[in-house]
Amino acid sequence: MINLGIIGAGYWGPNLVRNFNAHRDCTVLAVADAKPDRREFIQGQYPAVNVIADGFELIGNTRIDAVVIATPVGLHYDLAKCALQAGKHVLLEKPMTASAAQARELIDLAEQKNLRLMVDHTFIYNGAVRKVRQLIDKGEIGDVLYFDSVRVNLGLFQHDVNVIWDLAPHDVSIMDHLMADKAIAVSAIGRKHFSETLEDMAYLTVLFDSTAIAHFHVNWIAPVKVRTTLIGGTRKMVVYDDMESSEKIKVYDKGVELLTDEEARRKILVEYRVGDMTAPKIDSTEALRLMSREFLDAIAEGRAPLTDCHAGYRVVQILEAANRSLADNGKMIPLA
Amino acid sequence: MINLGIIGAGYWGPNLVRNFNAHRDCTVLAVADAKPDRREFIQGQYPAVNVIADGFELIGNTRIDAVVIATPVGLHYDLAKCALQAGKHVLLEKPMTASAAQARELIDLAEQKNLRLMVDHTFIYNGAVRKVRQLIDKGEIGDVLYFDSVRVNLGLFQHDVNVIWDLAPHDVSIMDHLMADKAIAVSAIGRKHFSETLEDMAYLTVLFDSTAIAHFHVNWIAPVKVRTTLIGGTRKMVVYDDMESSEKIKVYDKGVELLTDEEARRKILVEYRVGDMTAPKIDSTEALRLMSREFLDAIAEGRAPLTDCHAGYRVVQILEAANRSLADNGKMIPLA
Amino acid sequence: MINLGIIGAGYWGPNLVRNFNAHRDCTVLAVADAKPDRREFIQGQYPAVNVIADGFELIGNTRIDAVVIATPVGLHYDLAKCALQAGKHVLLEKPMTASAAQARELIDLAEQKNLRLMVDHTFIYNGAVRKVRQLIDKGEIGDVLYFDSVRVNLGLFQHDVNVIWDLAPHDVSIMDHLMADKAIAVSAIGRKHFSETLEDMAYLTVLFDSTAIAHFHVNWIAPVKVRTTLIGGTRKMVVYDDMESSEKIKVYDKGVELLTDEEARRKILVEYRVGDMTAPKIDSTEALRLMSREFLDAIAEGRAPLTDCHAGYRVVQILEAANRSLADNGKMIPLA
Amino acid sequence: MINLGIIGAGYWGPNLVRNFNAHRDCTVLAVADAKPDRREFIQGQYPAVNVIADGFELIGNTRIDAVVIATPVGLHYDLAKCALQAGKHVLLEKPMTASAAQARELIDLAEQKNLRLMVDHTFIYNGAVRKVRQLIDKGEIGDVLYFDSVRVNLGLFQHDVNVIWDLAPHDVSIMDHLMADKAIAVSAIGRKHFSETLEDMAYLTVLFDSTAIAHFHVNWIAPVKVRTTLIGGTRKMVVYDDMESSEKIKVYDKGVELLTDEEARRKILVEYRVGDMTAPKIDSTEALRLMSREFLDAIAEGRAPLTDCHAGYRVVQILEAANRSLADNGKMIPLA
Repeated sequence: MINLGIIGAGYWGPNLVRNFNAHRDCTVLAVADAKPDRREFIQGQYPAVNVIADGFELIGNTRIDAVVIATPVGLHYDLAKCALQAGKHVLLEKPMTASAAQARELIDLAEQKNLRLMVDHTFIYNGAVRKVRQLIDKGEIGDVLYFDSVRVNLGLFQHDVNVIWDLAPHDVSIMDHLMADKAIAVSAIGRKHFSETLEDMAYLTVLFDSTAIAHFHVNWIAPVKVRTTLIGGTRKMVVYDDMESSEKIKVYDKGVELLTDEEARRKILVEYRVGDMTAPKIDSTEALRLMSREFLDAIAEGRAPLTDCHAGYRVVQILEAANRSLADNGKMIPLA
Repeated sequence: MINLGIIGAGYWGPNLVRNFNAHRDCTVLAVADAKPDRREFIQGQYPAVNVIADGFELIGNTRIDAVVIATPVGLHYDLAKCALQAGKHVLLEKPMTASAAQARELIDLAEQKNLRLMVDHTFIYNGAVRKVRQLIDKGEIGDVLYFDSVRVNLGLFQHDVNVIWDLAPHDVSIMDHLMADKAIAVSAIGRKHFSETLEDMAYLTVLFDSTAIAHFHVNWIAPVKVRTTLIGGTRKMVVYDDMESSEKIKVYDKGVELLTDEEARRKILVEYRVGDMTAPKIDSTEALRLMSREFLDAIAEGRAPLTDCHAGYRVVQILEAANRSLADNGKMIPLA
Repeated sequence: MINLGIIGAGYWGPNLVRNFNAHRDCTVLAVADAKPDRREFIQGQYPAVNVIADGFELIGNTRIDAVVIATPVGLHYDLAKCALQAGKHVLLEKPMTASAAQARELIDLAEQKNLRLMVDHTFIYNGAVRKVRQLIDKGEIGDVLYFDSVRVNLGLFQHDVNVIWDLAPHDVSIMDHLMADKAIAVSAIGRKHFSETLEDMAYLTVLFDSTAIAHFHVNWIAPVKVRTTLIGGTRKMVVYDDMESSEKIKVYDKGVELLTDEEARRKILVEYRVGDMTAPKIDSTEALRLMSREFLDAIAEGRAPLTDCHAGYRVVQILEAANRSLADNGKMIPLA
Repeated sequence: MINLGIIGAGYWGPNLVRNFNAHRDCTVLAVADAKPDRREFIQGQYPAVNVIADGFELIGNTRIDAVVIATPVGLHYDLAKCALQAGKHVLLEKPMTASAAQARELIDLAEQKNLRLMVDHTFIYNGAVRKVRQLIDKGEIGDVLYFDSVRVNLGLFQHDVNVIWDLAPHDVSIMDHLMADKAIAVSAIGRKHFSETLEDMAYLTVLFDSTAIAHFHVNWIAPVKVRTTLIGGTRKMVVYDDMESSEKIKVYDKGVELLTDEEARRKILVEYRVGDMTAPKIDSTEALRLMSREFLDAIAEGRAPLTDCHAGYRVVQILEAANRSLADNGKMIPLA
């Protein structure tokens, strides 16, 4: 039995409590949140849970084996560091930390203490993303030439981070999971239409140690919700539309094939194979159920989880470079 | 009666012949194309037209009042210059010329000779674009904060120009027509997955003398055709989907409204007005019919046409800057 | 404070418990279900509720003011009769009873006892249906010429009733709510592809004391979920697609207009006004919340609820006639 | 070389002229139409064709080998009879004749004279329908349990026939082509909202010598165009949406499977296999090109064409029975 403490019971926290509670080898012992109304809400739903105000006090509870941190990102580093020092395994909400340096320090501390340090890149556990990963692993997609993501929203503003830090972690973590190439540089251009300090729309480009390219459009001020990703491979192409209820993944049996052309006036001839489209069956298990299972299994088996601290680091590294590029009008920023 | 000569009878040329022929105040006297099979095709359809191989010879025909140039862009400047020097009005296919300097020279020549110089920015005459322009003119959209266009294709490669010069003229001309702000800088990042010299996918960003931003995704190697434009205004937002048959334009009665927030922890509060969506009736008149009509009217009335040489110049200026940025890994290029 | 008992905790029952519990002027005192696992489920979620096996025993509880019956339809009549005789207000799941005669008897009993007798026609409380009703009430639709509904499913078979009794109550109750005309005859043709006794697909037609017509396609064995209703009015037409997330209701500014035609060879000329389409904002309040509110208010105010026993009766009358028509190969059955 | 005469140059006639003209083994010698403006239109497009007013005069032309009849259906019988008697092969537009008796007489005459008698069931030559037929022939669909078609339109009224005779021939001919079962009875209910004599909307049901069922919704007064067909097979199911540009055919790997259930309270258990969906590549060759090719080939090879007079007869038989049922409020009419 793993005893769990969860810090932060805002929008996402209750989903974490519900999912961890559903696993029989785990007990949510305590939940911490600074806001009285959130504590009241959790206590009402889970009378047996110890609900307190202070996250550090929760970490001090010696019966707790592992801590889940779902606070605003600005608090991640201090809480995670404290928890690791106290010998607890840690699961952090995305993005992992507010800087790559913080992420690096936590990684080193977790390794030194031999503790699990995981990041909740939820989408990686989603049936659609798992299906695309399977297709890539089986070689059906071929080499990924581009990853093009649009995530536009009519949602509420986040006030502590800009639109890239709010929305892009989803897509950057998916890209990191699906693409084998190493990201080497980042460019981002954005606009602050409704704030002095925070971009409400932005375009993010990532270059790799190959000819591949990734591009992300994130936007808080759009008229419609769009969550569409195009993945262009040499053998097949994928359209992933997360707003589609029944056909989230469409696999196009259309690659690009180079033919030598005898005619003098054409240098190259490219012929498209135009074949069938398949919308494969997608497992509809809640992603958070699999994510929470993975954290518990990684603890029990003493192994790195699927979305480990290194994936968390890579995502933060890209977000951090994006902020520097935003401040310099889209200048290309190399990744260390 | 305006006597017309058309140079270039490739993909687009026959549409021009058909549309100009349909106007009663205009006769297509001659068509020129270097390729025998294209000449044969035109002659079969229009036995009365004088079909010849050489465009310059066509320009030499003294009975011809106006010349339409639908050749590859590389030939536009020489043919248009010759035609203007011969005292003919000129309609050029888009993009107007291969460089802004060429466009400037043609503009000066046309002014000096008091001749009409027009560019076939066909989409400007499309019912959907005209409807959006009306909405903007009536103030219904408010200030345009962003123009986001995606034009991805499964089409054949163009071998003489890259994907930006092939696909972006459509969307850049629409943006130029709809946005009042002045473009001041351009950045473009692309990839040559299937060629040594020509980009097959690219992202283009345009900045303005305001906080507005325009962004274009053009792509030859996508699995599906997409032609979607989001136009974000302060009062309403528009989604223009050219692949939709019945609802090309959706107008969302959703702007963004700033509210002062008394609570200490929030700097700004943004509340979305969430209202109705309207898909207005779109006039389905063929755009090319209106474009050809406009050329004839501008000649008859001795006035500048709607898509005049200055619009053509601005589009070429952006494309030219895009090529420089492409060559420099997305560097922001100021427009003169 | 209204004390409530709920009989039946299968698929729908827990939603009723949750919604009634959320109203402050109501307490769910007891829940009855014959199945131990369902009782255990409810007890786990609501420790304070008295959970028992027998519905009649629940009715015997003198502290209970009103009973909600969410059992299979075969038990509705006996339980409702018993509850009314015991002086309780009654809310019945749809369809109200297994026959029109049973419904009539319950109506008479409720009137005699001056008790509320309501039917849970949930869809009437849905934002989309309420919006259409508003448009009709304001005269925007004009006279409804036809109501065409398709509800096809990939769901599980119901084993106690055929596909008409399972799926059509939704759409027949919507039709009954939206159309002013009186239904006078019913025809139904169905097929039992996978059962000896129960139709798994059927077509139902309803005629009125006007030229209006209603038609329903209900199907358990389709490859895709479809829930689409066309409502054709003399002034406007409505498409209601319940599978659409953002545009459930589309109102077409297209009526049909008769013109007198002078030309000899045409008897009539019908010209379509082709105008704009509007997708109005739909209130997303959970229908069950409003339905449960209405039951409590009707009790408190001593008035008939919106979806009262007479609406329940009319729906059962149509379903009953449909069964007779099914048995006679689609013969048109007059309604009494 | 086959010399052809075409009678009727209204909406469809020019498409026939264009397609037959495109085959090198065929010459369109003459076109007849009673209306001067239609004759003028054809003469303008095809200066070499002999354009006349009278169809019977065209039939009298001894150089003509075969006659295509694209007049209103009321003239089909007289013209076709005359042409067959004159020894010409005949292609009739759909529906073949105004009655089954007329169709029978023409069939007998054609057999007696050993002439080809074909009906232009255009949709049978459409890539989507050919693909579904292939799937059925290969056994991938299994037995067809139902064929459900919706064809609703915002088109102009036809003044000579009702909506069933106008729209249903398309879908009835597709059904006839795809289903192996023999139609044995027909029921139809319709409404004349805008005419004294002609139904503008109708529901048509066809029963077979099996448990299969076919159903057709045809409608002139709908707010949107819909052309959707569901084909439910024991092994797979097909959705054919003719309004879709890129995914006209979706094949669902979902059949229905009966399982024996040990539990006492359930009689049958039906489990859906829920698998992948595939949208196969559809050949986009114009259907009329293949149809016209088939007529010429059938003449040259002295064999029955794919859509022969017997298919034409079966469709007319169903339409005729539908009219009788319409007049008798949906009474089930057995087919002879």
